[in-house]
Amino acid sequence: MSLLVVGSVAFDSVKTPFGEVDEILGGSATYFSTAASYFTDVNLVAVVGEDFPAQHVNFLKSRGVNTEGLERQPGKTFRWKGEYGYQLNEANTLETHLNVFETFKPAIPASYKDSDGVFLANIDPALQLDVLKQVNSPKIIACDTMNFWISGKREALINTLKHVDILIINDGEARQLAEESNLVKAANVIRSYGPKHIIIKRGEYGALMFNSQSIFAAPAYPLENVFDPTGAGDSFAGGFMGYLLNTKNFSETSMRQAVIFGSVMASFVVEDFSLNRMKALDYKEIKQRYMEFKQLTHFEEPGEIFKQ
Amino acid sequence: MSLLVVGSVAFDSVKTPFGEVDEILGGSATYFSTAASYFTDVNLVAVVGEDFPAQHVNFLKSRGVNTEGLERQPGKTFRWKGEYGYQLNEANTLETHLNVFETFKPAIPASYKDSDGVFLANIDPALQLDVLKQVNSPKIIACDTMNFWISGKREALINTLKHVDILIINDGEARQLAEESNLVKAANVIRSYGPKHIIIKRGEYGALMFNSQSIFAAPAYPLENVFDPTGAGDSFAGGFMGYLLNTKNFSETSMRQAVIFGSVMASFVVEDFSLNRMKALDYKEIKQRYMEFKQLTHFEEPGEIFKQ
Repeated sequence: MSLLVVGSVAFDSVKTPFGEVDEILGGSATYFSTAASYFTDVNLVAVVGEDFPAQHVNFLKSRGVNTEGLERQPGKTFRWKGEYGYQLNEANTLETHLNVFETFKPAIPASYKDSDGVFLANIDPALQLDVLKQVNSPKIIACDTMNFWISGKREALINTLKHVDILIINDGEARQLAEESNLVKAANVIRSYGPKHIIIKRGEYGALMFNSQSIFAAPAYPLENVFDPTGAGDSFAGGFMGYLLNTKNFSETSMRQAVIFGSVMASFVVEDFSLNRMKALDYKEIKQRYMEFKQLTHFEEPGEIFKQ
Repeated sequence: MSLLVVGSVAFDSVKTPFGEVDEILGGSATYFSTAASYFTDVNLVAVVGEDFPAQHVNFLKSRGVNTEGLERQPGKTFRWKGEYGYQLNEANTLETHLNVFETFKPAIPASYKDSDGVFLANIDPALQLDVLKQVNSPKIIACDTMNFWISGKREALINTLKHVDILIINDGEARQLAEESNLVKAANVIRSYGPKHIIIKRGEYGALMFNSQSIFAAPAYPLENVFDPTGAGDSFAGGFMGYLLNTKNFSETSMRQAVIFGSVMASFVVEDFSLNRMKALDYKEIKQRYMEFKQLTHFEEPGEIFKQ
């Protein structure tokens, strides 16, 4: 099955306590596509400037990502600069230059219109809705958003959410969107906006998935060396959606497995800058880390307990 | 099997966004004993003042807690006053009156000396060590501590830890004790001080247990109504140690189950002020919530995955 992603391709400059890199390949659609490419066919829609090197396009192609929808516009590629402290939980943005991304109007190529799944990465909710108008009844639609749109374009966002099956956001955003500090209640509020499934990412604390039937809690993989958290959320979404499209079924069982595959991909990406670690992955390692999540969370039912 | 706990019995005054109570029963040893009493025999050592009402002692007795070691001293009982904001993750201490607790010198009654397990709640590490000198080779020893002792009595604490099997602390304390921000590394450092097992409590994010072989991640139960988090950590420790003593074995399997029972007891205690919710518990509810943790964390192994 094929998976359409619409989002950003960018150059990131990142400083962490463990190192510093300049203008490396980044962007939500880049991380998402690469992670998802291990599981399913990916149709990428994004925009880059004249300065975007063929080597990066070739990398995406080498992962089997369809780059027909990767527009090239006059001007420069989106650039982001940020740094992380020792806690590594939140980036401090130093510079944002939207460049060609500022006037991005996603145009879905004809060959993408029958994509089975759609992931709307964090872009203007009005553009997200516009993407949905251009595709022919995908089987599953997920989206991300951020504080900027929640506060600045709330109405457009609520309107987009009516058409979305799965919302994947972080805990702060969930609280802000629902105007509710308790996450269980917040997920209920957000479900009333449309999405049947809410996945709340909590960084080093893992993820929670809520639907009308149940809650699923997945830990993050406890890593000894977290090098750079940039892209973890989008890699999570890529692994999650990629696996769902791979299994061709969206049952609770598949969704839970997909959350784990998302967590697996996120756990790899933070081990190095940019896509360096994910680039070098093979399926055996992915499966092995999945089984490590199984071990990490396993506990037996108790026997009969009575006070001695 | 019997479980000795040494800690505080106190009157708490607590304000949360959901209500306010004055001078209710609290203290680390109280929460611990009550939680553990559902699983095993508890021998309590603590001190109260002349103002401590018989009704509270009778409550502990009604839970089967042995109160022979509950000293009564001239003066007032330990009082703590604190408040929580909407995030409910950290108490803001408004007042602490140690009163009779200030000169507490735990004396272990002869009938307690053969206790099979010992839990040293958060008291001066020198007193914790003194307790260990008074008991006859317990099968398992766990302890808690806090930032105050980590910074103020570091040497004494490290000395106590040499004799401890299981350290149960929160994430901030683990980082402070190990002087290391990464929790996996911090747990390794702390294990080098003596304890073979490190349990790191992360409040609403659950708990991690580390030993030389493996890491276990348990979520917190996602509650729609968290009323008052006071006592959650000590109730966790009580459920954990109580279950371990109940099973009479300290295998990895039992330890993991014990972490879940700890999480179960903590999830109940925060549903109301003081011990109100825990008082009303029956074993069926405890077992049911344990099974809800199973459901909360369950996911299947994936089938064969190949890119379509």
